[in-house]
Amino acid sequence: MREDDVIAELLAAASAEAGPHLVRGPGDDAALLRPPPGHELVWSVDDHVEGVHFRPAWGWEAAGRKAAGAALSDLAASGAAPLGALLSLGLPRDVDPADLRALARGFGAKLRQAVCPLAGGNVTRSAGVRLSTSVLGAVPRGGGLWRDGARPGAELFVSGPLGLARAGLVWLEGGGALDEAALAPALDALLDPSPRLALGLRLGASEGVAALDLSDGLARDLPRLAAACGCAAQVDLGRVPGPPADVAARVAVDPIELAWEGGEDYELLVAGPAELEALGLVRIGRLIEGTPGAVEGGGAPGGYDPFA
Amino acid sequence: MREDDVIAELLAAASAEAGPHLVRGPGDDAALLRPPPGHELVWSVDDHVEGVHFRPAWGWEAAGRKAAGAALSDLAASGAAPLGALLSLGLPRDVDPADLRALARGFGAKLRQAVCPLAGGNVTRSAGVRLSTSVLGAVPRGGGLWRDGARPGAELFVSGPLGLARAGLVWLEGGGALDEAALAPALDALLDPSPRLALGLRLGASEGVAALDLSDGLARDLPRLAAACGCAAQVDLGRVPGPPADVAARVAVDPIELAWEGGEDYELLVAGPAELEALGLVRIGRLIEGTPGAVEGGGAPGGYDPFA
Repeated sequence: MREDDVIAELLAAASAEAGPHLVRGPGDDAALLRPPPGHELVWSVDDHVEGVHFRPAWGWEAAGRKAAGAALSDLAASGAAPLGALLSLGLPRDVDPADLRALARGFGAKLRQAVCPLAGGNVTRSAGVRLSTSVLGAVPRGGGLWRDGARPGAELFVSGPLGLARAGLVWLEGGGALDEAALAPALDALLDPSPRLALGLRLGASEGVAALDLSDGLARDLPRLAAACGCAAQVDLGRVPGPPADVAARVAVDPIELAWEGGEDYELLVAGPAELEALGLVRIGRLIEGTPGAVEGGGAPGGYDPFA
Repeated sequence: MREDDVIAELLAAASAEAGPHLVRGPGDDAALLRPPPGHELVWSVDDHVEGVHFRPAWGWEAAGRKAAGAALSDLAASGAAPLGALLSLGLPRDVDPADLRALARGFGAKLRQAVCPLAGGNVTRSAGVRLSTSVLGAVPRGGGLWRDGARPGAELFVSGPLGLARAGLVWLEGGGALDEAALAPALDALLDPSPRLALGLRLGASEGVAALDLSDGLARDLPRLAAACGCAAQVDLGRVPGPPADVAARVAVDPIELAWEGGEDYELLVAGPAELEALGLVRIGRLIEGTPGAVEGGGAPGGYDPFA
């Protein structure tokens, strides 16, 4: 395929219409955006690499959905409304056009769900397929949701069950089938993550709240949040919502270990006032005075490190 | 190396200080930017991949400079002032820390030269080294520099000699030395491209001007500019400034071929009024009525296609 054909496939799958914020989309050296008045910009980039974050055997549509979902999750964790996405796509020379179409379909569908237009991108050759997705969002001036927004005494919450994506990964890496009904919640969490955009917007409008998305797992991300807030954390592992017992049993991993160490769930970790429980958050502990980043009551140190 | 160490190396090399526009830099799920009032945003992404855009033998510092320079060139071609850059970096598991430091040094130096802070980024494993650089810039509302900004009758210009980077590439791929004095201008063009940011800002303030950066070479980029303007182009190949005769002779390629087909010079191709010659631009032809994208008087079809 030629570069222009690759780009055409992507544009056909994603919405790239100019709108109130995207003044010029793909086709020039750069996109032109008009941020909403009175707003600031939230900007992030996230990578999805074949063999690291996904495997071809999982399906190319899933690879596209996963890449877009993970990138949008950074906007959710910042309390931002999406303005647009740029995709830098690495493709092997012999890519199958049907695979590329499936990838584009999954990526485009996830962006459309989030009302996030594709503003442009870039295509290069690479050894395996690689999606590097840059997202831009808007927060009201002085607003947004940050890691350092809470203080000792704040309650700690998560926005949903953790360890599901890890259970799905263990299942697939062990040779399990993609369509195993009993594993459906775990496979959905892994292959079709749902960025918590609406929740992020609500949290961003609250005072004294800190948050980040649990892309690397509670074991790595909880110390980060506590450290950013300049304090320690006390967690009650028994309260951390994990995968259903039958899912954990099928993959033969302790559900608490899955919930503590598993990344890529893209749920939010939130610190803030007790009233946040009314938003459907699950309380798992609190921030306390102490060595910044220290965690009491957690599981073993661990979590996902791409270089470990 | 651990992910955190990799990020620390990059931040040490680039300026990541918060300033009037970068409110929050690296360290959270996303960066926070405050665009200058009355401005719109220009946004682009550019990739540099080991084995495609650079080779380790060229030196890691050059790889970093080249990646940052190419990304900034998209801002130059859009008439934008840089606000910040995000780097998504792919690294092999066994990367040598000294190589990474050199890469970071080159990348950071090029950003600092352009007064463009590093707003954040992401590190993943990949087979070879890969830099995907997303840049954000500001243009006055209603301003900027676009491919479709000119009409038939506009003069065509280039901002400097073309084909130098290609000559450098031919030299190095043929086993030539990195420190060959006679090839210095060609090697500089290839390994340390200078984005035409100041020129872009001046052109963006002019009426009836179209531009793009010659990253893929005149043979591919001229038809794109003409097509965007809805017209054809007439070019006088004899006027296209190429590499010095001794450089072309050393690599045994016709200088006209180098100038017509060679990409990665990051000079600007500009269409606009004759007065632009006063900015030091070199006139090479004009836009004419005709089939959109057709070119009269050019060389053979060609130019860089990463999938060709």
